[in-house]
Amino acid sequence: MVKQMLKEKVLASFNKQIVPLDELTISVNDRAYLFGDGVYEVLRVYKSRPFLLVEHMNRLARSLSAIGISGVGSLTADILSIISLNHIDEGMVYVQISRGTAPRVHSFHNLSLQPNILMYAKPFYEHPAAMDAKTGINAITHEDIRWGRCDIKSIGLLANCLAQSKAHQIGAQEAILIRENNVTEGSSSNVFIVKNKIIKTPPLSQHILPGTRRQFLINALSEHGYQVEEDNITKDELLLADEVFITSSIKEAIAVIKVDQHPINNQNLGPVAKHARALILQASLNS
Amino acid sequence: MVKQMLKEKVLASFNKQIVPLDELTISVNDRAYLFGDGVYEVLRVYKSRPFLLVEHMNRLARSLSAIGISGVGSLTADILSIISLNHIDEGMVYVQISRGTAPRVHSFHNLSLQPNILMYAKPFYEHPAAMDAKTGINAITHEDIRWGRCDIKSIGLLANCLAQSKAHQIGAQEAILIRENNVTEGSSSNVFIVKNKIIKTPPLSQHILPGTRRQFLINALSEHGYQVEEDNITKDELLLADEVFITSSIKEAIAVIKVDQHPINNQNLGPVAKHARALILQASLNS
Repeated sequence: MVKQMLKEKVLASFNKQIVPLDELTISVNDRAYLFGDGVYEVLRVYKSRPFLLVEHMNRLARSLSAIGISGVGSLTADILSIISLNHIDEGMVYVQISRGTAPRVHSFHNLSLQPNILMYAKPFYEHPAAMDAKTGINAITHEDIRWGRCDIKSIGLLANCLAQSKAHQIGAQEAILIRENNVTEGSSSNVFIVKNKIIKTPPLSQHILPGTRRQFLINALSEHGYQVEEDNITKDELLLADEVFITSSIKEAIAVIKVDQHPINNQNLGPVAKHARALILQASLNS
Repeated sequence: MVKQMLKEKVLASFNKQIVPLDELTISVNDRAYLFGDGVYEVLRVYKSRPFLLVEHMNRLARSLSAIGISGVGSLTADILSIISLNHIDEGMVYVQISRGTAPRVHSFHNLSLQPNILMYAKPFYEHPAAMDAKTGINAITHEDIRWGRCDIKSIGLLANCLAQSKAHQIGAQEAILIRENNVTEGSSSNVFIVKNKIIKTPPLSQHILPGTRRQFLINALSEHGYQVEEDNITKDELLLADEVFITSSIKEAIAVIKVDQHPINNQNLGPVAKHARALILQASLNS
């Protein structure tokens, strides 16, 4: 009984100290709290192993470098350790790094800061995307009002939170963001469409996150004979697509069967979306 | 001696509990920490009184409403109390409100959250803008990569921090942000220019914060016979202005005497900047 309770308490690591997540507190002067001055990663764990770990760590290093946070060494051992400490079979790892703790001044020039490294791992008692994968989801379109460096995985996610909340509020599951009439990405996903057998996803730019599943699928779908193009997708192309699907570490690949009031593929799961999801799950087993 | 030490310890209030600021910790699940999901205000205190309190509280209410945080009552009594508890004569108050504490999911729809209200007051042992006001400052121009709702005073300030740090790094004191060739504002200030006796400041939009000193000065300078226009300012107009000055609660009004490599007003303080500053200080005495 006690063992069961202990097992269910999520353990976090903060600067390598292990603490139950719900008891972990941080200084109010952490720049993540005052400025959103930090970056993060979410990793999916299959069979106790973090999937695409190298890709996530490379992206984290890129985000850190882009905003000038240095002094973070390799986190691989700590990630494996937090997965193990939480006895994760199926689950996820959250990693967040802030610039450090200091009295509130915008400029970090000449501040001598030690980054704060937060990490926790949570088990999935059931596959979080299972139901959505089975039925497909509804999406809305929403103006992309995020900042100009969405290629950096920063924790400044208020615009994402507002868009996703708006979707949920009107009975949809995701908001697909539109900037100057082009699809950028979802509020917490990348977006693919299929039209006349051609798969398209928006090209990398400062307006989209280089999603690990996005890149994985571009490669894997190409290898399986699909024509995959990284090209702009207009809002009309989105609404008139044969298929739409979104990807993320947690969601894997999920068919979108309705966008705004437009049914996609007669509100059925499309074959490419199903195949994309199968490719991720298959790779996760072999990782 | 003990009294002196106690006096110097900044007291904060978190959901009405009084704690020394440097001992105050918050849950890692506070949405301000994980998402930058919160808004804030900085008030200047003159002679123990918060200046333009009503204007700041109105703006805070507007920010909260814009991002859908409700349930925050009047903060006026608490602000006066934290000023008093910290024995502030000259100083500032920081107020930050996050959406609340909950396990990390983007969407706040259907979450039943209690906002977290942080407040602290710090004394100024010397006037923080005194030296800059005496000498004027150097500014750089910097691309405005912030989100599309800068009229909301959100704590997602990474773009501002990066711009201000860049300015400091190359020996300037402020970064003036440029969006599509027009000045929006400074990294933590509003911007005014003077050309041929006409004062200009960018019009209110979703790209600039409705600064309390900005509005105060539009009114006060107009009343003193100046022609004040709320109109777009191109980057060239900025560089070729007769005067440039920035305004904020803490900085009041500060002359900019160099922008990038362009001297402004032969690197001397201009008469309008001086007058603007005098008008704020005069009003602060009579508030």
